[in-house]
Amino acid sequence: MKKIRLGMMGGGIGAFIGDAHRRAARICNDFELIGGVFSTDYQKGKQFADLENILPERCYPTLDAFVKGELTRPLNERIEAVSIVTPNMLHHEFAKKLLKNGFHVICEKPMTFTVDEAMELQEIVNKTKLSFALAHTYTGYPMVRQMKEIVKSGVLGKIHRVDAQYYQGWVNSIIQGTGSGITGVWRLDPNFAGMSSCMGDIGVHAFNLIEYTTGLQIQKVLADLSPVKENVQLDLDGTVLLQLPDNIKGVIRSSQVAAGEENNLTIAIYGSHASLKWSQENPNFLYQLSDAEPTKVYKPAHDYNSSFAQASQVMPSGHPEGIYEALGNIYKGVARSIRGEQLFDGEFPTVEDGVRGMKFISNVVSSNKEGNIWKVL
Amino acid sequence: MKKIRLGMMGGGIGAFIGDAHRRAARICNDFELIGGVFSTDYQKGKQFADLENILPERCYPTLDAFVKGELTRPLNERIEAVSIVTPNMLHHEFAKKLLKNGFHVICEKPMTFTVDEAMELQEIVNKTKLSFALAHTYTGYPMVRQMKEIVKSGVLGKIHRVDAQYYQGWVNSIIQGTGSGITGVWRLDPNFAGMSSCMGDIGVHAFNLIEYTTGLQIQKVLADLSPVKENVQLDLDGTVLLQLPDNIKGVIRSSQVAAGEENNLTIAIYGSHASLKWSQENPNFLYQLSDAEPTKVYKPAHDYNSSFAQASQVMPSGHPEGIYEALGNIYKGVARSIRGEQLFDGEFPTVEDGVRGMKFISNVVSSNKEGNIWKVL
Amino acid sequence: MKKIRLGMMGGGIGAFIGDAHRRAARICNDFELIGGVFSTDYQKGKQFADLENILPERCYPTLDAFVKGELTRPLNERIEAVSIVTPNMLHHEFAKKLLKNGFHVICEKPMTFTVDEAMELQEIVNKTKLSFALAHTYTGYPMVRQMKEIVKSGVLGKIHRVDAQYYQGWVNSIIQGTGSGITGVWRLDPNFAGMSSCMGDIGVHAFNLIEYTTGLQIQKVLADLSPVKENVQLDLDGTVLLQLPDNIKGVIRSSQVAAGEENNLTIAIYGSHASLKWSQENPNFLYQLSDAEPTKVYKPAHDYNSSFAQASQVMPSGHPEGIYEALGNIYKGVARSIRGEQLFDGEFPTVEDGVRGMKFISNVVSSNKEGNIWKVL
Amino acid sequence: MKKIRLGMMGGGIGAFIGDAHRRAARICNDFELIGGVFSTDYQKGKQFADLENILPERCYPTLDAFVKGELTRPLNERIEAVSIVTPNMLHHEFAKKLLKNGFHVICEKPMTFTVDEAMELQEIVNKTKLSFALAHTYTGYPMVRQMKEIVKSGVLGKIHRVDAQYYQGWVNSIIQGTGSGITGVWRLDPNFAGMSSCMGDIGVHAFNLIEYTTGLQIQKVLADLSPVKENVQLDLDGTVLLQLPDNIKGVIRSSQVAAGEENNLTIAIYGSHASLKWSQENPNFLYQLSDAEPTKVYKPAHDYNSSFAQASQVMPSGHPEGIYEALGNIYKGVARSIRGEQLFDGEFPTVEDGVRGMKFISNVVSSNKEGNIWKVL
Repeated sequence: MKKIRLGMMGGGIGAFIGDAHRRAARICNDFELIGGVFSTDYQKGKQFADLENILPERCYPTLDAFVKGELTRPLNERIEAVSIVTPNMLHHEFAKKLLKNGFHVICEKPMTFTVDEAMELQEIVNKTKLSFALAHTYTGYPMVRQMKEIVKSGVLGKIHRVDAQYYQGWVNSIIQGTGSGITGVWRLDPNFAGMSSCMGDIGVHAFNLIEYTTGLQIQKVLADLSPVKENVQLDLDGTVLLQLPDNIKGVIRSSQVAAGEENNLTIAIYGSHASLKWSQENPNFLYQLSDAEPTKVYKPAHDYNSSFAQASQVMPSGHPEGIYEALGNIYKGVARSIRGEQLFDGEFPTVEDGVRGMKFISNVVSSNKEGNIWKVL
Repeated sequence: MKKIRLGMMGGGIGAFIGDAHRRAARICNDFELIGGVFSTDYQKGKQFADLENILPERCYPTLDAFVKGELTRPLNERIEAVSIVTPNMLHHEFAKKLLKNGFHVICEKPMTFTVDEAMELQEIVNKTKLSFALAHTYTGYPMVRQMKEIVKSGVLGKIHRVDAQYYQGWVNSIIQGTGSGITGVWRLDPNFAGMSSCMGDIGVHAFNLIEYTTGLQIQKVLADLSPVKENVQLDLDGTVLLQLPDNIKGVIRSSQVAAGEENNLTIAIYGSHASLKWSQENPNFLYQLSDAEPTKVYKPAHDYNSSFAQASQVMPSGHPEGIYEALGNIYKGVARSIRGEQLFDGEFPTVEDGVRGMKFISNVVSSNKEGNIWKVL
Repeated sequence: MKKIRLGMMGGGIGAFIGDAHRRAARICNDFELIGGVFSTDYQKGKQFADLENILPERCYPTLDAFVKGELTRPLNERIEAVSIVTPNMLHHEFAKKLLKNGFHVICEKPMTFTVDEAMELQEIVNKTKLSFALAHTYTGYPMVRQMKEIVKSGVLGKIHRVDAQYYQGWVNSIIQGTGSGITGVWRLDPNFAGMSSCMGDIGVHAFNLIEYTTGLQIQKVLADLSPVKENVQLDLDGTVLLQLPDNIKGVIRSSQVAAGEENNLTIAIYGSHASLKWSQENPNFLYQLSDAEPTKVYKPAHDYNSSFAQASQVMPSGHPEGIYEALGNIYKGVARSIRGEQLFDGEFPTVEDGVRGMKFISNVVSSNKEGNIWKVL
Repeated sequence: MKKIRLGMMGGGIGAFIGDAHRRAARICNDFELIGGVFSTDYQKGKQFADLENILPERCYPTLDAFVKGELTRPLNERIEAVSIVTPNMLHHEFAKKLLKNGFHVICEKPMTFTVDEAMELQEIVNKTKLSFALAHTYTGYPMVRQMKEIVKSGVLGKIHRVDAQYYQGWVNSIIQGTGSGITGVWRLDPNFAGMSSCMGDIGVHAFNLIEYTTGLQIQKVLADLSPVKENVQLDLDGTVLLQLPDNIKGVIRSSQVAAGEENNLTIAIYGSHASLKWSQENPNFLYQLSDAEPTKVYKPAHDYNSSFAQASQVMPSGHPEGIYEALGNIYKGVARSIRGEQLFDGEFPTVEDGVRGMKFISNVVSSNKEGNIWKVL
């Protein structure tokens, strides 16, 4: 099968997230990395291109050069899709320009700096009909997809409550150092990261996971955020009360200063008849609780799963796939979308999810600033 | 060793919590149940006394009769301590009268209906110097006590966040029945249960566990509660934002309608250097996380534990003790207090804990009623 | 309800297992400890009696004195049942004499030193119709009982394999000390413990658990045992291959020198359609695996359990009961047996289980001595 | 960096293990799949080549054609390394011919049909100095590598016991069907699989894991195997007693008919001071037990790990990598070997491991056939 020609913005030598995207693209085996703008420092970008066996002429110094260069190529050689894995402040500009020039886009989150920018992208995607995926990687896990399908099936009864958590501890070592340590980390710098650190970087994943698995939209938020330390400009810790339709209550708890926590994203959906729980650090176990039956533990690669979940693991049961495979599933969805195949509901997070995420971040920050009041999304 | 003569208010035939108290008293082996008022229906009370081999003359029809009857006995025969395991609305009246007449008291929670009642009891206890214990059973677990000691030791560094959860599902089956079902359950009836169901019955345990293990007082709360269904008068579900000293943030999440949840009380304390996590349904495992070291799993009956935790398990390691033994540890503490022995810090929850709990319940209910605003405890 | 008058042989000050039996007897609330022979040193025995509020005249210096003294008392005062919690070498003599004089017996395991002694006891029990229980405590856990019932129900299909493990590490610290350390521990001394340490003390629990839960008898064993260190006279570690009816294979793995293991008894029963797994250190979780369905996790106090399992936990679900309650369930069974009530199948381990256990220990030791050959039980 | 040109034997359309190898090769990013013999049916092989964008001229009908074709190419175009993912009966012939013609080899296990064949390969590898890796995938997990390093460090003290398990259930559904079902599965057919099913396919992984992590060689085995059902020609279930140097005892338990088990490979190493446990279905958790300290849980991507374990995970901690990444680590090791880089001890399983594995399988089968006697490896 012909591979889709992939470009990349950012993600050069030493970049954690760019490497993850490339691995995911290789795992799903539907893409071939052809070129890109791998660094703001062109020399470094070229070093990277050399390492990755990318032709020098496809390694560009700037986005403009990239677009110009690729558009001069015939359609059957031109890069078709582009992954944007730069710091947050470039997402909007890059996505906009790429979409407007006919490239499909896979974009890291948060999608933009502002809600307006997000809505602008949404408009462009809707108009161009190009494929646009947001890298909410966790929706690529088979058991998250199974969770979505179980909710759809109605076995939970009336949903009463959603409770998501995203705890990390890695910022501790940074804020305990000197001030210069803080400024050196782009995720803590508003100029690079945007209006929020904890909620923008990880809380928004929890938000997305709730909307993804329940199929519901969060209507109102009330947030209490904390920068934890004096010199820190953005939130590193926070709790968000949620209001969903039909009087469903919820909460998102998130921290980057919870010592010893690695990447502890969890979600629980509580219903009147049954409940579901999932945890990212043991992603191949999905728990369904009910008062009337023994707790059920779903695992991937079993016939009892939905066809969507089944399609999301290649290995037989008991062979744990991980986060690269989750992101690979999202890339697989984008490839299938580009090829015009019939998609499952939820194969990759969309530009609408990006708009929702920006509304969440924006309103959470406002709620906190205005004295922990309810804000409508 | 001479046993302490124990009386009991409530807890007759079919009572779950009264039975638990009696088992705990037998396990710790420091008490002998001598008499009490076991039911509002005297005939049923006498049946119960007969079953338990309690002398008929020590089975009283009312609190007044109990007090009068016991005071006529010589000191070396008189009941010394009384467990109050009635529905909530009788706690205050019974405790007050018993204390004023010289009986030590072990009282179920919530301690009273109002903060004023609670403070009145506190005053009496302080004046009479009698032993008064509140049945926050979970503080009797060895690993909760170890948690308290580890926090004291300072290894967590600066505490950043506390996060406690208490989820149950048993009310689901009640509210899905008819309205009469609801009125039949005293915990859902304000006349019996007081101003809150979820927060008053279980949320307050989470509150107590936070203050117990951290040694800190929660300063402010902001609550979002829900009765979940139309006919329900009290909260069955809620989230409470917490503010603690030194800018520590926290959250309590609690529900009685989380289908399939049994008695899922958890607590996590996150610090700048290390964090602690404990869960009631696996009470013999305490997790200490840190960025720099492998996660440590503490278990009871090891020399590496504090002497307080060591004193709280009898069996060698790997022989799981349970909730009866936890409550037995609290009874043991009361016995040691009555005998004037040197106590560990935190051997049983005190009347001060009861006042704190009532302030929590009261302010949480107010915060919710007044539009989810911060209330000072 | 009138309590059964209980006596005790051994179990005085500092005795771990005697204390466990007394706690269990108090928890089930059907017994009252009246007297016994608490120590080979009469002065220590009397000190203990004083601590436990036992009348001096019921504290005897010897078994003979006990029997003589009690038989002079009228039936309605006489001790009815006796717990034997002495070192192993006294079990047979004490049980025999007590049974022959009309006392019901609860005996620690292993039941005797030899198979012949065990069969002699069996004969006496069968003749006298007295109640005799062997303290295979783990059969008192609700989820072990549920396991037995699920196997009975046939949902496993054809059983293919059983696999039990009992690992501890406590002997490590002893054998790493001096030789005198070894001789000071009665469990490692053949004169006190009998022909085996690891298999006699803990391996036999695994054996019993297999026969209890499957309802099958192990037919043949092939053992490889090790004393681990030069000065040690008994086995501290070993593996036993098992042959059961219908070509079922199995294995028992046991060690007392597995550093860091506490009391890690596990059992798994593998069938053609489903399998069951249980672990003593998390006794309230029973796992049922099958190829066709999500794994099911059974917990106590749910209506989905068998009535036998339901009767074995008092607390509502999610309130963990522990090992004292397991032993209490066995005492409860003995009380119900003495009172002539209708018993569930398997309410307490019997003298037949004791004979089976001795056959296991004896043949395992022989198999090892004779060069790891199959021995028929 | 220039990619190593990779060929493949077997692994065409629908092949589970061939796909896994290709994904692993893509993940580690050091290889490019250039050609091979993908099926015994040449038409199917060509279909597969087309799907994978492999040039038609590099898709060969037979091994001979492959060797002949590649040797005619200049060195800088020629395939350098070949993955053998055929059924077992072709491993030896293919590996031998490929090695003799200068190709590096990555071979699925078991390496050969007989010990003699294995030793022949060993001789060739030693003579040619080519890189040869055996696909004991599980040694590629970071926490297995950390286990090896911890054992090396000596913290376990004197090793007393090793205990490994490999339980699966997938064969149940096959043997419960008709006889034709059985013959249709190559792993159950001696002509394709060799002398053993359970021990040859999975037991040997457990064997390898013991030797890999302890650095010790198993000296003697005593096996009890079972075909479970009448028509089955090979073992589907078995237990193997192990004797290691210095009086270390051990056991391997393995089954393909344990209903509901997925791919449950576990290993435990018990020492006098500490012990280690690891389980393949939760591969990112390594448990270190000791009597003196809380249990420690190691996870990947922490500085506290050895540099070998650190080099084996790319993602930050808490981002679970899975089995593809484990196999990718082995491919990475082969690439580093081919490039002449300095290797960690144990970066990939070698031809010596293959010889050891064949000795294990051969002796286990003999031990069982000859009446469960000890056999020297």
